[in-house]
Amino acid sequence: MKNIEKICINTLRFLSIDMVEKAKSGHPGAPMGMAPVAYTLWQKHLRYDSSNPGWPDRDRFVLSAGHASALLYALLHVYGYNMPVEELKKFRQLGSKTPGHPERDVESGIETTTGPLGQGFANAVGMALAEKWLAGHYNQPGHEIINHYTWVLASDGDMMEGVCSEAASLAGALALGKLICIYDDNEISIEGSTDKTFTEDVGARFSAYGWRVIGPVDGNDIEQIDTALNTAKQETDRPAIIICKTCIGYGSPNKCGKASAHGEPLGADEAELTRNNLNWGYPPFVVPGEAASHFKKSTDRGKQAYSAWCKKYEQYKAVFPEEADQFDLALEGRLPGGWDQGMGSLLEGITKPVATREVSGVVLNEIAKNIRNLAGGSADLAPSTKTILTEKGHFGPQDYAGNNIHFGVREHSMGAVANGISLHGGIIPYTATFLIFYDYMRPPVRLAAMMGLGVVFLFTHDSIGLGEDGPTHQPVEQIMGLRLVPGLVTLRPADAAETVGAWKIAMNRRHSPTAIVLTRQKLPLIERSGQFDIDLVARGAYIVREWGLKPEIIIIATGSEVQLAISAGINLKEKGVNARVVSMPSWELFDEQEKSYRQMILPPEVKARISVEAGRTTGWQRYIGEDGLAIGVDRFGVSAPWQMAYGYLGLTVERIVDEALRLLGR
Amino acid sequence: MKNIEKICINTLRFLSIDMVEKAKSGHPGAPMGMAPVAYTLWQKHLRYDSSNPGWPDRDRFVLSAGHASALLYALLHVYGYNMPVEELKKFRQLGSKTPGHPERDVESGIETTTGPLGQGFANAVGMALAEKWLAGHYNQPGHEIINHYTWVLASDGDMMEGVCSEAASLAGALALGKLICIYDDNEISIEGSTDKTFTEDVGARFSAYGWRVIGPVDGNDIEQIDTALNTAKQETDRPAIIICKTCIGYGSPNKCGKASAHGEPLGADEAELTRNNLNWGYPPFVVPGEAASHFKKSTDRGKQAYSAWCKKYEQYKAVFPEEADQFDLALEGRLPGGWDQGMGSLLEGITKPVATREVSGVVLNEIAKNIRNLAGGSADLAPSTKTILTEKGHFGPQDYAGNNIHFGVREHSMGAVANGISLHGGIIPYTATFLIFYDYMRPPVRLAAMMGLGVVFLFTHDSIGLGEDGPTHQPVEQIMGLRLVPGLVTLRPADAAETVGAWKIAMNRRHSPTAIVLTRQKLPLIERSGQFDIDLVARGAYIVREWGLKPEIIIIATGSEVQLAISAGINLKEKGVNARVVSMPSWELFDEQEKSYRQMILPPEVKARISVEAGRTTGWQRYIGEDGLAIGVDRFGVSAPWQMAYGYLGLTVERIVDEALRLLGR
Repeated sequence: MKNIEKICINTLRFLSIDMVEKAKSGHPGAPMGMAPVAYTLWQKHLRYDSSNPGWPDRDRFVLSAGHASALLYALLHVYGYNMPVEELKKFRQLGSKTPGHPERDVESGIETTTGPLGQGFANAVGMALAEKWLAGHYNQPGHEIINHYTWVLASDGDMMEGVCSEAASLAGALALGKLICIYDDNEISIEGSTDKTFTEDVGARFSAYGWRVIGPVDGNDIEQIDTALNTAKQETDRPAIIICKTCIGYGSPNKCGKASAHGEPLGADEAELTRNNLNWGYPPFVVPGEAASHFKKSTDRGKQAYSAWCKKYEQYKAVFPEEADQFDLALEGRLPGGWDQGMGSLLEGITKPVATREVSGVVLNEIAKNIRNLAGGSADLAPSTKTILTEKGHFGPQDYAGNNIHFGVREHSMGAVANGISLHGGIIPYTATFLIFYDYMRPPVRLAAMMGLGVVFLFTHDSIGLGEDGPTHQPVEQIMGLRLVPGLVTLRPADAAETVGAWKIAMNRRHSPTAIVLTRQKLPLIERSGQFDIDLVARGAYIVREWGLKPEIIIIATGSEVQLAISAGINLKEKGVNARVVSMPSWELFDEQEKSYRQMILPPEVKARISVEAGRTTGWQRYIGEDGLAIGVDRFGVSAPWQMAYGYLGLTVERIVDEALRLLGR
Repeated sequence: MKNIEKICINTLRFLSIDMVEKAKSGHPGAPMGMAPVAYTLWQKHLRYDSSNPGWPDRDRFVLSAGHASALLYALLHVYGYNMPVEELKKFRQLGSKTPGHPERDVESGIETTTGPLGQGFANAVGMALAEKWLAGHYNQPGHEIINHYTWVLASDGDMMEGVCSEAASLAGALALGKLICIYDDNEISIEGSTDKTFTEDVGARFSAYGWRVIGPVDGNDIEQIDTALNTAKQETDRPAIIICKTCIGYGSPNKCGKASAHGEPLGADEAELTRNNLNWGYPPFVVPGEAASHFKKSTDRGKQAYSAWCKKYEQYKAVFPEEADQFDLALEGRLPGGWDQGMGSLLEGITKPVATREVSGVVLNEIAKNIRNLAGGSADLAPSTKTILTEKGHFGPQDYAGNNIHFGVREHSMGAVANGISLHGGIIPYTATFLIFYDYMRPPVRLAAMMGLGVVFLFTHDSIGLGEDGPTHQPVEQIMGLRLVPGLVTLRPADAAETVGAWKIAMNRRHSPTAIVLTRQKLPLIERSGQFDIDLVARGAYIVREWGLKPEIIIIATGSEVQLAISAGINLKEKGVNARVVSMPSWELFDEQEKSYRQMILPPEVKARISVEAGRTTGWQRYIGEDGLAIGVDRFGVSAPWQMAYGYLGLTVERIVDEALRLLGR
């Protein structure tokens, strides 16, 4: 290794150490061990331009081992991103750009939010998938405007997580040849040596998935690393994993190779010993001048690459102006004008009871006619979730331009891969599974909300209404669970009309995720008191039916229970009670409305209120107040035909009527 | 194959077909394909006694592919369990013993609730782990009272799920040699051929985990199957997987090998064609007499095996009476008398602020002194979750009597493996991770609640109070999420005293799970108005401090926020306001109290109420009413030292005081 390379690598090490020491918390061990591989990748291989961080054809770099954030911030600092030394000094402090785990900030070079292990790896699979799809759609012979690698740095912890296994298996099946994983095989996790519980042969496992396995290489030998990176780049038929043997806490005389190097500062004494050991005479947070010059070579290489691409793109634009327009539109995350023109007329054809999942399938296919970059699929439930784009191909080695993605029975990675697709840009992803399996994919839904990704998460079979499959498959706590995720909008449409509205809202939400919750069972078309405008759904709640001007009681319902509420209202009218039925497809959207609208829908003087929803009642007190009554399912469900399940669990018109009369003291 | 064997196998096939046809819903394909392997296993290998289904040393049989429930019910019917033909005829109907997916019912031979894919596989790993532990503890030279296999039948869907990968890796590392997986490799999933998205080499993957891989064998050749089962049984150093090539919907002329055989009835016509094709002249639900006689050979074998074991156990009891008593106690799920004697005195030593996770670690170790069958661990966070049993060994090939289990960074399988341990019986399992990673293990926590398993789920780092690690690691919606799971009791202790109480409650709940939610940060010892009895925690909520007899305002808080509420109360007193502070460690336990107690704690006439909890406020309206105010965290957190995070997000004494004065109009 040349001396300048040593200096550069130690610059990354000591910036990381200094950040952790100053913050008095953090993870120094992984940055110290991975500095040589990170340096080699960024200095010689990574295609980026720190002056143009949003460059669509840049290589994507994901630090899946998000706890090693100090290393990422150090890299961004030395390679010219908007990451000044002041921010490094504010590591893990309030309001800094350098939080404990990286938070997506493309302008600063942070491609995704990582930390919960395995997520970044699966995000990278999604990014590589997006690259293939965009290349499949937009590249033209002699005009390759999309052709980049996706790199992911992963740890032992990532490798142990199931989401990572799922995503790796998917990447193998899809033959994502420009995905390269660098595995930091340091043999240490928090409880000590990986011998204790992680004795598997990771290389053999990835080989079984269909990956090219390179190494093990010595993570301190940058020639070996360089060769491995080149080999991986040349392997474009399969994803590649480079197994890098490193030493956690490298350079620290007393902590190298020990679990204690992982998650706490070295301490002033050990930091000093490490400085001596690595012969590092610089004060904290200093990038030596010669190192800066050397790093600049890489930065300059990046600028040139970007310029070259711009020229190429100009030529493309000249020859394929229409494609270029579409490409720009897609990458900017905008929708084409008039994309929703056909949506209103979809309802005209619907005259019989229909499941909202069925309607959703029709709407999805209609939208796909106008928005060609809508792509997604299901975790092996597409025939049930109604999510096949019938006029589009199936994404895979035979057709990388296909819009239908077969995620396999891998809900967790489906969510995280969809996040990666969205992060890459250029594609609007959707996912689908049964609502109960939201439990398998909670972490990526949360991260989509945290990052502000416009992913559409479809969840069908949304209640005890799925019937015979029984309590293991009947969601009870999941609807309310979705509502608890900050930033997520959850929509539970009551019929075909609201389903169309829900999709419209979801498509317009390009900077935050939407969950659409749909029935398995058929629902009748709702007869409404007034004119229905699908944009009423965007209000979150509206009066769907009422009898008389002055309601004595308000029945608030969502989804399939709206019809029960309406039947109860009719019944109550016969008994001389004026009810108002409010359909509330979305709590979040209703809460966003101005107070006057909210009070118009739910007048404070009407204290008699009932909520009806086939899920946990916890939380409904917010809309029904202390005097109200929440009808729902506060236990696990039952295996039975769905009508029987509804009856057995007390979700019936009779029950609503009885409770209403009781509340009104009649 | 002998003719009688064909008849027996077809009996299983047609019972399954008949059930699905009668129910007009269900999954016939897998039972039809797997009937030969299921027959061979049960007829010749499985060690069970259907007259004594709870026999501790029985083999465990897990149908991880729970959708194939009809096959399990058919097996239980023909092999003499309490599963009469009337129940088969009520398949998937309300109130039957034959729900759509198997629900744990040991008396009827159903070892675990399966359906959500991958869970059963991981349960089986837990059962095999429990077998090793019990053998390690109770067997004596010449007296092997525990020595059985755990069998799991898994599908392609199971194999794709991350939880299954995690559990398989763990089983390999722990060398669970008496775990045998039969993999139904039928190459079909709901979206069609597994070629689309599941091209990996499953055998090579399991080999990488350290498993013995047997096959592929022809799933219709019972000699091949028999040989494979024998080979697997002889391999006791490693878990074994038998890859069985089968045809989904075997016997159906038009559906064999097709996805359409998976999840819907064959239909009357195709069922008839299948009868003709397999030459089956019997009416629906009939077990031919000759088949019944043949099945009885297996049942008789089982009875003899049980008798032999009973004799062996009597001898053991005579020679090792103390061990036998302990064994009985453990298997019956009872706690030894006086197990909690030392718990009260634990508090005496605590005089300084301490994190509840720290206290929990002390309590856990105290309990382990008296309860030797308490075993568990963490998903690679033991030093942080404080869950190491310092005087016990580490479970693994070197010491199968160790009580500390290293689950690895595998939260999802940790939960499902713990469920399996509990299902096996003989061990009280606990798990631990950060609260945010509850999101990675929601399905097993739900299933523990559904099955009524006494697992203790510990979740530390329970709020924004974890500080610098930032929003990816700060739970916000997770505490309320736990409360939404029916049957789960969630406890969030406010200090050392409540932590001791929480553990006591959890240990006493032997037939349902408990989540204990603990802080990372230190908490001061609470100064209480009255005498504290740790059993107050079992009330769910109690008055922890009050000023004056008539409270003007009630502040309800949980966990780390109780101290804030008390400080606010002191401050309010100085301003002339009498507050009452209620500590509410558990909603569920409070809701179970008689009305008089609940109204004593929260008098209906006191309308001014504030809740304080560092999590989503949704749901608190239940206790604070319409006029109340919920202080919490309705957004994602921030990376900062924890005191800063609390301040920034408005969880401060000043805020509580201000809001209280505002509510009271002062």
